[in-house]
Amino acid sequence: MTEPHAVHPSADSMLAVAREQARLGLAEGGIPIGAALFHKDGTLLGAGRNRRVQDDDPSMHAETSAFRAAGRLRGYQDTIMVTTLSPCWYCSGLVRQFNIGQVVIGEATTFYGGHDWLAENGVGITLLNDAECISLMRDFIAARPDLWYEDIGE
Amino acid sequence: MTEPHAVHPSADSMLAVAREQARLGLAEGGIPIGAALFHKDGTLLGAGRNRRVQDDDPSMHAETSAFRAAGRLRGYQDTIMVTTLSPCWYCSGLVRQFNIGQVVIGEATTFYGGHDWLAENGVGITLLNDAECISLMRDFIAARPDLWYEDIGE
Repeated sequence: MTEPHAVHPSADSMLAVAREQARLGLAEGGIPIGAALFHKDGTLLGAGRNRRVQDDDPSMHAETSAFRAAGRLRGYQDTIMVTTLSPCWYCSGLVRQFNIGQVVIGEATTFYGGHDWLAENGVGITLLNDAECISLMRDFIAARPDLWYEDIGE
Repeated sequence: MTEPHAVHPSADSMLAVAREQARLGLAEGGIPIGAALFHKDGTLLGAGRNRRVQDDDPSMHAETSAFRAAGRLRGYQDTIMVTTLSPCWYCSGLVRQFNIGQVVIGEATTFYGGHDWLAENGVGITLLNDAECISLMRDFIAARPDLWYEDIGE
């Protein structure tokens, strides 16, 4: 999936793509976490959402889903992973292993993942405090704690 | 995928399942890394191999493939991830996030991943020094360095 986007996208405009994925996931009965991988020039490389419920697939967190949708690439230093929620260890490990240069995070209020570890290891972190991302997750966790805790292995 | 196995499997007998996956991957033209997720009672929960080449899927490392094959589970503390090669940060993050209790590793000679970090965080690590796992990777890296460095994002 590749489509042209504005050059030098703002964090908010990139987050809008991930948030739309989260909304789609919720509408499908899934866990409302979305992500998108951009080139730093603004090109959208891939977008995805958590697919645990939709595909019965525990390996497809939002970030891994976006990474997969971007296909095989040679080098990720110039890419930006945008996610509605602070990345868990699994998704933080993905970012570190593939040397994804930057991560834009919608919120870290409902879940605090591994983004400090990423920052310590040279990844650029932009942590937003997006009200819709927070309410999507807060409402979902209240409604379906079983699915949420399954998704993070707790 | 679930099939009965002997109770209290040895690390070597579990590694044989992962190694067979690595051999299958090589025969398919893929990267020869295999993994299997066992319950500690010896039940094989899922097995898989790196699928970058076969499926054009960069998200399917051996460990994520085995995790996926095991399907949705509620709690991984009593499971053992067996892999032919030291887990990269992506796969180490998977183990940490889902609280997989133990990791059995065929070798860490051709690639040294995140298993020390896992040990520091309470995961039981068994590091073998399996000659066939080493030769599978050594020969592959020499023959196809392009694929190998693509797979680990270097």
